[in-house]
Amino acid sequence: MNTAYLSLERHFARLSSLNDAIGILSWDKEVMMPSGAAERRAENMAMLEGLRHEILTAPAMAELLAEAGVDATGEDAVWRNANLAAMRRLHKRATALPQDLVEAFSHATSRCEIVWRSARETSDFATLQPYMAEVLRLTRAVADATGEALGLNPYDALLDGFDPGTRQSDIDPVFARLRADLPGLIAGVLDHQAALPPAIPLHGPFPVARQEALGRVLMRQLGFDMTRGRLDVSTHPFCGGATFDVRLTTRYDEADFIPAMMGVLHETGHALYDMGLPAAWVSQPVGQAGGMTLHESQSLLMEMQFCRSGAFARWLAPHARTALAIPDTASGWDGANLHRLLTHVEPGFIRVDADEVTYPAHILVRYELEKAMIAGDLALADLPGAFNDGIHALLGLRVPDDRRGCLQDIHWPEGLFGYFPCYALGAMAAAQFRAAACQQNPDILPAVGKGDFAPLLAWLRQNVHGRASSATMPQILREATGRPLEADAYLAHIRNRYIDRAPDA
Amino acid sequence: MNTAYLSLERHFARLSSLNDAIGILSWDKEVMMPSGAAERRAENMAMLEGLRHEILTAPAMAELLAEAGVDATGEDAVWRNANLAAMRRLHKRATALPQDLVEAFSHATSRCEIVWRSARETSDFATLQPYMAEVLRLTRAVADATGEALGLNPYDALLDGFDPGTRQSDIDPVFARLRADLPGLIAGVLDHQAALPPAIPLHGPFPVARQEALGRVLMRQLGFDMTRGRLDVSTHPFCGGATFDVRLTTRYDEADFIPAMMGVLHETGHALYDMGLPAAWVSQPVGQAGGMTLHESQSLLMEMQFCRSGAFARWLAPHARTALAIPDTASGWDGANLHRLLTHVEPGFIRVDADEVTYPAHILVRYELEKAMIAGDLALADLPGAFNDGIHALLGLRVPDDRRGCLQDIHWPEGLFGYFPCYALGAMAAAQFRAAACQQNPDILPAVGKGDFAPLLAWLRQNVHGRASSATMPQILREATGRPLEADAYLAHIRNRYIDRAPDA
Repeated sequence: MNTAYLSLERHFARLSSLNDAIGILSWDKEVMMPSGAAERRAENMAMLEGLRHEILTAPAMAELLAEAGVDATGEDAVWRNANLAAMRRLHKRATALPQDLVEAFSHATSRCEIVWRSARETSDFATLQPYMAEVLRLTRAVADATGEALGLNPYDALLDGFDPGTRQSDIDPVFARLRADLPGLIAGVLDHQAALPPAIPLHGPFPVARQEALGRVLMRQLGFDMTRGRLDVSTHPFCGGATFDVRLTTRYDEADFIPAMMGVLHETGHALYDMGLPAAWVSQPVGQAGGMTLHESQSLLMEMQFCRSGAFARWLAPHARTALAIPDTASGWDGANLHRLLTHVEPGFIRVDADEVTYPAHILVRYELEKAMIAGDLALADLPGAFNDGIHALLGLRVPDDRRGCLQDIHWPEGLFGYFPCYALGAMAAAQFRAAACQQNPDILPAVGKGDFAPLLAWLRQNVHGRASSATMPQILREATGRPLEADAYLAHIRNRYIDRAPDA
Repeated sequence: MNTAYLSLERHFARLSSLNDAIGILSWDKEVMMPSGAAERRAENMAMLEGLRHEILTAPAMAELLAEAGVDATGEDAVWRNANLAAMRRLHKRATALPQDLVEAFSHATSRCEIVWRSARETSDFATLQPYMAEVLRLTRAVADATGEALGLNPYDALLDGFDPGTRQSDIDPVFARLRADLPGLIAGVLDHQAALPPAIPLHGPFPVARQEALGRVLMRQLGFDMTRGRLDVSTHPFCGGATFDVRLTTRYDEADFIPAMMGVLHETGHALYDMGLPAAWVSQPVGQAGGMTLHESQSLLMEMQFCRSGAFARWLAPHARTALAIPDTASGWDGANLHRLLTHVEPGFIRVDADEVTYPAHILVRYELEKAMIAGDLALADLPGAFNDGIHALLGLRVPDDRRGCLQDIHWPEGLFGYFPCYALGAMAAAQFRAAACQQNPDILPAVGKGDFAPLLAWLRQNVHGRASSATMPQILREATGRPLEADAYLAHIRNRYIDRAPDA
């Protein structure tokens, strides 16, 4: 590599530090910040994002990127080449946007998110609408400008920001298959479920402190390094933070420990990906996770594929019972019953509470709506009605209020359009990874059945985590599983677990 | 004002946002960060401080400062002129230092602080010494470069960074008076105390959750706005955070609630100053607090002057009793006995636990030692012994180990030389402020005796907090109290409270 490339590595290491600062401040905003600081924090975040944009788009950066060269062979050549390509992509995306648009977008989303918090509570879409309108207006401006620079249509330009290289044309056939198969599959699963004797509900109260202790037990069990992360509470669970400082959140319900526990397992899947990125490349673009579809595949692989399996439920039942200090007289605390509860299917309103069978339906609705909003084909005033119609068409449910409809998610108020499809694509990829991992190493599932995630984690470190962004998502997926992204493994998994009812599934 | 001045306001608003980010990340480092993130966080902080330095020293900044002009009359003329002067002072200090020195200093202090945490626990000065040597070497380089730019001797250059305008020559006569009077005064106070019947100790355990609840009750009582700040736990209590987001910490001992409670009252004094700065100037240099002596005067005014007074102790006793859920059968929970406990004098090793009578002795020792270290007259290997000799000379105590000696404070490992004297100067100023406030508004002390701090806070808002950096510390002190900074009010207060034993004192 030449000196221009080495100089770029230094600039991007600096940007990585700035990303870390933004990551911790974002976590703080959700978890720690007092309410009266919100306006000022919005300004602070906009300033830091402006600064990041300024560093990335400085004239010197363009000159260095033009001059930079990397050897085609030798140790790390693949990584350095991918790093330079990732730098160029980031620079191209950033220079597509004028500084004032970046700052206006950050301001608008920070403010909109604050309004959303109270609007969701009171199911008040009307109050949110003008703030959302401003976010949408600026998101479309971002999509247009980025799309023009990258030669992409506006929605693809947004998608590409979350999942480098993924296009609407990749998603549409996968989602068409789901749209065709899902209603029948859901009906079949519900029929089979109805034919079983009812599962025994587990009664609380489950004190928050004990649920938190259980969460920490499970995080450690899966391989989370407690010296490099934290578990806290926020309204909308997430995995964030910074390099070597991965911060999960969940939320607790004292009447039911399962949602918080599964939330922790989900976010731990994300965290393990971040913790498994190669230390040598941690401050460079190539050292980052390979987009949201891969990230979501890792959370769903843990939460859905392995931690709701019959094999794991048999290990989990006695361990959860101990951590939650459940008296000996309580019934239903066996693996088979817990598995029934963990795999209960019921069409519902709330995406984040949805089971893995009905979950993709929530995404199909949001995907169509956000494409229409970005295209200008759907007025915001019509969003609540269109959302409710979509849920009815796919799940047969009538949404009773916007709190349980289009106000439930933080994404659109935060300006995250083009993000939702990655959740469903991640579910597809997770099923593919599980099938491939268990085929390549038959010890993985039996080990998980003993609470031992080490063989699984070793496979993931080698085939996914350790590769970071040295290859694209489709490359990583194909090399690990032998297949492109498709719905087959997911649909087979659903049939195996819910209709054929294989005991370990 | 001209356009150059307006442009400077925008640049400094940006720096203010960067300061906020650094403030929250610093708080996070002490309160939330997992241990494994320490090295990386040190890099992040160094990067942000480097960025701040870069913005402040950019060529455009020098040009704008040369061109900037402000009207001499009209509304806010005083503020704008003081703002421009403060900008020029900050710029002069920053340009005195090369970027690599700023970053090296930040790295060295972050690393040294981490080593100090374990070295303090094991009383292991030898392990800390090489890290401290590097911090001292860089601090001396900073002092030399800054002093050269400002025409100050090296120690004055450091002092000026914490307390703009204060010089060794201002401190020396005040400290000489203390050095002369203090040993006799301490002996007199101890004689009077020995002649009284013993105070009744208050027995715990006092659960942390109840102590925390008591802390929050008292914070609100003093006027702390809970929507604009937090109370948490850290090893070394501090008041930090950001604009409109003031974060206090304390540490708890279940056997004794008084240290944590007084810590909270101390930090609340700092917090009220920050919360009382004028909102209109909050993102400008002139809107910041007027140096560490004023800041410390505000914490000591609350903790020492008012909250340990007989008048307040009578209100506090039943309220603390309720918050701590003390049974009716417990004895000693009356105002007079609590006042005895709050004003107990006993020479000890730990500065932050010291009573207000012996406290200045701890500072006199550190002041002489740090002047010698900066001058190169004291080798680090000789520091522990010299420290212990100083404590023996002033307090008659033999320091048993470095944990209770020169390792007890975070300041030197953090590179904070020139900071210690402000604590004792703050104690002097606090006594002057109390005397002046109570003379100008005789309702203040009776109100505090009813738990009502509103009249006191109103006086402080007008005479101290609301003035921010629109005038220098000596101006603010003289206009509020009619006197320059001196030891008289402090010495009179000590005699009044501990020897004459006035009941409200």
